[in-house]
Amino acid sequence: MNLVPAVLEKNINNVTGASPERVTTMTENTSEFLSVPGVRLGTTCASIKKPDHRDLVVIELTAGTQTAAVFTQNAFCAAPVIMARQHLAGVMPRYLLINTGYANAGTGDHGLEDARQCCEALASLTGCKLEEVLPFSTGVIGESLPVEKISRALPNAVGQLQAMGWSDAAWGIMTTDTRPKLVSRTIAIEGKQITITGMAKGAGMIRPDMATMLAFITTDAQLEPELLQDCLHDAVDQSFNRITVDGDTSTNDACVLCATGQSGVEVSASSVTNDAFRQGLTDVCMDLAKGIVRDGEGATKLINVQVNGGRNPTECLAVAYTIAHSPLVKTAFFAADPNWGRILATVGRAGISDLEIKAVNIFLDEVCIVRNGERDPEYTEDQGQTVMERNEITVQIELGRGTGSANVWTCDFSYDYVRINAEYRT
Amino acid sequence: MNLVPAVLEKNINNVTGASPERVTTMTENTSEFLSVPGVRLGTTCASIKKPDHRDLVVIELTAGTQTAAVFTQNAFCAAPVIMARQHLAGVMPRYLLINTGYANAGTGDHGLEDARQCCEALASLTGCKLEEVLPFSTGVIGESLPVEKISRALPNAVGQLQAMGWSDAAWGIMTTDTRPKLVSRTIAIEGKQITITGMAKGAGMIRPDMATMLAFITTDAQLEPELLQDCLHDAVDQSFNRITVDGDTSTNDACVLCATGQSGVEVSASSVTNDAFRQGLTDVCMDLAKGIVRDGEGATKLINVQVNGGRNPTECLAVAYTIAHSPLVKTAFFAADPNWGRILATVGRAGISDLEIKAVNIFLDEVCIVRNGERDPEYTEDQGQTVMERNEITVQIELGRGTGSANVWTCDFSYDYVRINAEYRT
Repeated sequence: MNLVPAVLEKNINNVTGASPERVTTMTENTSEFLSVPGVRLGTTCASIKKPDHRDLVVIELTAGTQTAAVFTQNAFCAAPVIMARQHLAGVMPRYLLINTGYANAGTGDHGLEDARQCCEALASLTGCKLEEVLPFSTGVIGESLPVEKISRALPNAVGQLQAMGWSDAAWGIMTTDTRPKLVSRTIAIEGKQITITGMAKGAGMIRPDMATMLAFITTDAQLEPELLQDCLHDAVDQSFNRITVDGDTSTNDACVLCATGQSGVEVSASSVTNDAFRQGLTDVCMDLAKGIVRDGEGATKLINVQVNGGRNPTECLAVAYTIAHSPLVKTAFFAADPNWGRILATVGRAGISDLEIKAVNIFLDEVCIVRNGERDPEYTEDQGQTVMERNEITVQIELGRGTGSANVWTCDFSYDYVRINAEYRT
Repeated sequence: MNLVPAVLEKNINNVTGASPERVTTMTENTSEFLSVPGVRLGTTCASIKKPDHRDLVVIELTAGTQTAAVFTQNAFCAAPVIMARQHLAGVMPRYLLINTGYANAGTGDHGLEDARQCCEALASLTGCKLEEVLPFSTGVIGESLPVEKISRALPNAVGQLQAMGWSDAAWGIMTTDTRPKLVSRTIAIEGKQITITGMAKGAGMIRPDMATMLAFITTDAQLEPELLQDCLHDAVDQSFNRITVDGDTSTNDACVLCATGQSGVEVSASSVTNDAFRQGLTDVCMDLAKGIVRDGEGATKLINVQVNGGRNPTECLAVAYTIAHSPLVKTAFFAADPNWGRILATVGRAGISDLEIKAVNIFLDEVCIVRNGERDPEYTEDQGQTVMERNEITVQIELGRGTGSANVWTCDFSYDYVRINAEYRT
């Protein structure tokens, strides 16, 4: 079974002042990203967990850059998450410091001290304040950070800082990911152009809750902090918060949006520019989020679970997540087996009160498999098989009891998921 | 990695009139069960899905037998579940008719008609009323029952009816199960002895909700119908409703308890006999429930998730299920990897409000892995490794915020789970 091929989409249009002019670059072909004025990136090998492995990334933000962020809702949030939240509350960050290998979670006060020392090392190297550095970690939970190794490697990372450093950085934040997730998009706003470029990592322990594993998005647009945070919340809620690989919410999720303002284009809440920016940002987040699911641990298929006709979006989301987390449904997708009875059983156990099963229809892409709560009389196994062989499949559930809808992106469940997670620490 | 060996437990004691005298027989060694006066079983091959496969079981109950049952809460409940509920509401059943191969779920009105025809065939063969037959089906969802095949095979099943038919029947109700689940127990009540014998099937799509896949339990005690139903509810709630293999609640779950009264021993709500009977019944249900988890699809380990110190049992159960359903935790158990960070992360995402992480302790059997919210300073990887090599492991979580507790039994997540469910219909 082939992995889903890399997305490489170019779609340039420029019709009105507010319509998006899109340049989207994804995954292996990371040479097509667009740099963002005011942002430089440096990547190096600190040998944190494995030798000769790019595992340390520094992102430099020009003075005056506004930064918004959302973090994991996991009660056991990691030391770097606690510290990044504290620092962000007080100052405008100048540096983001990211390591892979160890997550610095479940490490108590000692973990906070380790995170502080790493930030301190970067601050003294670059002449900024400790609080102007935001730390991010990803990897094995419960092991301490090798502060010495990180400190020794930092001068090299800083020496590498360059506007074109995105590709190396997108590789540098990967753990069990098999390919980098890097997206660029330009938006024409009132005759001028702004750029949004972002990268993300994540392949397992993925069911983001108000944030994803790690995503770093920057733009040269200029936004007030409240608007920036609001745009980020909105975009994340429609993208990273709608994907799941295994239902496991990480301790280290963080999604950061930095606006350098270097384009001179101001996005304000009251103008048409607001909609254009929000749409562009959401598109970037959605591309990155889908990139994470496509690269889900062991994934061979991208599944869009679309639930319509619920009494409200909440119950639609409950059905969508119940399907997206069902090991039986996910293994059937892996096997390309149109075992639609498993989908039906999952809808039935999703906890929807007074569900009228005779109102329920279920589709696999264009094929109706369940009509009025039972097998569609016109359905044939061949039709189901044809859809199940595809690399991208939409499961559509019609509940027939209202106008609510919701969708969730997920992947299938394969031998490789078990292999990857049985071998991860070895 | 070895499968957990069969339980073969004998524990005879007879101290007071109400203390249980236990004879428990489990799994491969099904020759040690005890028959129940008033109950006969017949098993045959109807070639429903596979040729030459024991797939049809008839259980005959003597006149005057009281029957209680609980069924799946899945909204898409199967045709036999709908019909069994209807029949049970009106009469005292004389026959239980069980087939494997196809579940007769998601089959609409046609499925109800098929179930009715099967019941009708057995009724005319044995001279009872249609309503005195309860149908049960398990297998692939969405396919129609081969009514002809079942009708043709029924005379042979009826011809096989015998009090010692339990072992064949326990094999006859299996689908992806690798071994039968059959338990007997005797209870001494006021100097007399009653017997409880039950069998269950189930290995996948297991997260029973008010019932299990299929379990049939009989006793020669005599109970009023309300008391019988109450005893069953209680026992199921502490046993089948506390196990999970994959979080998927079936469309066909049913657990039936039949009391023939042939021992002449009456169990009444107001006497000490009530407690003795409840305890014995719960023990039988618990043995069967654990048998299902041990035989969970691809399972190599039996995991007891015990959560203490919550504000109430509900939040403890939420934490226990979150752990028991985490693919990351389950694959770590499969790999015998003491990757305790995954357990900690799962506790953190279980949705407990105001969780004070510094109050949380986590144990693997006798080994403390997390103390006060972080790695126990005295924990060594060797200690964790020693526990993880065991076939039965207790994960104990102390939340440190109250006196609530709850526990759930589950199994690990292996390559074989994916193989079994990717190949199930082929």
